[in-house]
Amino acid sequence: MTVGDLGEFGVIQRISGRLPRTAAVLLGPGDDAAVLKAPDGRVVVSTDLLIEGRHFRRDWSSGYDIGRKAAAQNLSDIVAMGADPTALVVGLGLPADVPADWLDALTDGFRDECDLVGATVAGGDIARSETVVLGVTALGDLGGRSPVTRSGARPGDVVAVAGRLGYAAAGLALLGAGVTGGPPELVALLEAHRRPLPPYPCGPRAALLGATAMLDVSDGLLQDLGHVADASGVAVALDAAALPVPETLTAAARHLGADPLEWVLTGGDDHALAATFPSEVRLPPEWTPAGVVTEGRGVRVDGQTRTEGGWDHFRG
Amino acid sequence: MTVGDLGEFGVIQRISGRLPRTAAVLLGPGDDAAVLKAPDGRVVVSTDLLIEGRHFRRDWSSGYDIGRKAAAQNLSDIVAMGADPTALVVGLGLPADVPADWLDALTDGFRDECDLVGATVAGGDIARSETVVLGVTALGDLGGRSPVTRSGARPGDVVAVAGRLGYAAAGLALLGAGVTGGPPELVALLEAHRRPLPPYPCGPRAALLGATAMLDVSDGLLQDLGHVADASGVAVALDAAALPVPETLTAAARHLGADPLEWVLTGGDDHALAATFPSEVRLPPEWTPAGVVTEGRGVRVDGQTRTEGGWDHFRG
Repeated sequence: MTVGDLGEFGVIQRISGRLPRTAAVLLGPGDDAAVLKAPDGRVVVSTDLLIEGRHFRRDWSSGYDIGRKAAAQNLSDIVAMGADPTALVVGLGLPADVPADWLDALTDGFRDECDLVGATVAGGDIARSETVVLGVTALGDLGGRSPVTRSGARPGDVVAVAGRLGYAAAGLALLGAGVTGGPPELVALLEAHRRPLPPYPCGPRAALLGATAMLDVSDGLLQDLGHVADASGVAVALDAAALPVPETLTAAARHLGADPLEWVLTGGDDHALAATFPSEVRLPPEWTPAGVVTEGRGVRVDGQTRTEGGWDHFRG
Repeated sequence: MTVGDLGEFGVIQRISGRLPRTAAVLLGPGDDAAVLKAPDGRVVVSTDLLIEGRHFRRDWSSGYDIGRKAAAQNLSDIVAMGADPTALVVGLGLPADVPADWLDALTDGFRDECDLVGATVAGGDIARSETVVLGVTALGDLGGRSPVTRSGARPGDVVAVAGRLGYAAAGLALLGAGVTGGPPELVALLEAHRRPLPPYPCGPRAALLGATAMLDVSDGLLQDLGHVADASGVAVALDAAALPVPETLTAAARHLGADPLEWVLTGGDDHALAATFPSEVRLPPEWTPAGVVTEGRGVRVDGQTRTEGGWDHFRG
């Protein structure tokens, strides 16, 4: 059974049937548009386009993992503003020969990742396409909080990180070296490459704590802190010894003759959060202080300049 | 100068520089997410995926027209709920060899169509892709009105249409017959194929008038009224003589030996609105009454059954 056998109507019914309704969804799939609660009176919205062969490969990741990852990276953008995700809408481009089972798995991946934050897929669009294309839009509610942008970091602020850093990069390096299994801690890294574990609750909580700037680490800590430095007109000085480099990463790096700190500094795809806080804020344990904001520009690690700003990865 | 020459950062700057900010956009492009006003406390959201070669062709339509059409079809979904569009977010997949001029024209098309409803593009995502892909999401505000769904039509209601019907289909038929120019009324039909003129103000106004069901006519009047009939559990009886068949269509049909009524009944892409109203509602002139809602199912024209429901165009 393929998507082509199901037809558009069948595909929509099949997807809708696997998705829960949540209280935030006042009107779900099946009309011209969905209607969501936006109790704050403002809505936070972020969109990503994921294209097969560039952002994912069906022979490398299951439909389930692709769904989880696609949802995660969008939900993470919402919490990085300090908001609570309410729903996704998903435009889905599908070749006719995609198996119905794959579609089910993709849907379940979206559903399970959304479940982590109490959200769901509230609507979407189906189109035929040569390769799988996902246009994912996430919406969220600020619950009365001010959005935490990239531009509010001030000299004297503390730089802190929440969530995993370097795991996905280590997993990719292991896969590249032909490691496809092993002890649980290695498998966890392989899994991390396929599926991020964003620290969802940390985003809204950071807004409440008074974070001055925050973003989702999707391109690597250095690069993303470079965006904060650029947008805020400040410099970021990281202390390498303060960054979390767990034994899992160290062991994998030893195995590959790599430097685990580089994974932590430059690895993307984990969707950790990086934020700046006024120095007087008492950070809860999920945040690891790892540097300070200073006058200047760019990002330094142990006093050494690592980024100058002006990132570009369209050509990458 | 191509998109590849500009790079991701250059593309984003170039697009952002051409877009106005509106009062509804509290935080625009450049952060993890945009923040929009949602004064109603609910947000209406619709998404569409448009794929080159399937939904548009760069050799048939200009970048400007593609932008206008992509914006129009999404904005139309918002007004079809009775809401006022506030903003779009756009995921844009681009081959590196796309000329920068084409990107400018696309952006201007989005901008000018959004201008018609006081909206703008508030954010987006850029990705490299083999062909142009547009993931367009529109958001809107209900302004205290109830959303007008597809499921509220009741026997006794009047069926009415607003906006142009059959124009885009006539334009396509003319193009197919090799007509690429001629008197202004023919050119208007060719234009209609490239760029719809949705009757934006009619949507929110219909909600205020008490419309019981409404939708955006994107797949053809019969097919779309079939959705209303299905969702509402009723039948729709159209009176062919009441449907608007302007002289422009009649003349083009005469030229091609076609039936203009078929264009009106089955042509998509004009993004007219079709709605049902309680019979006591005094319809303003922009709405043309063209039938009634009855018990039963499906859509009849002059007593003859034309749809049974269960539409499917995934295979189409």
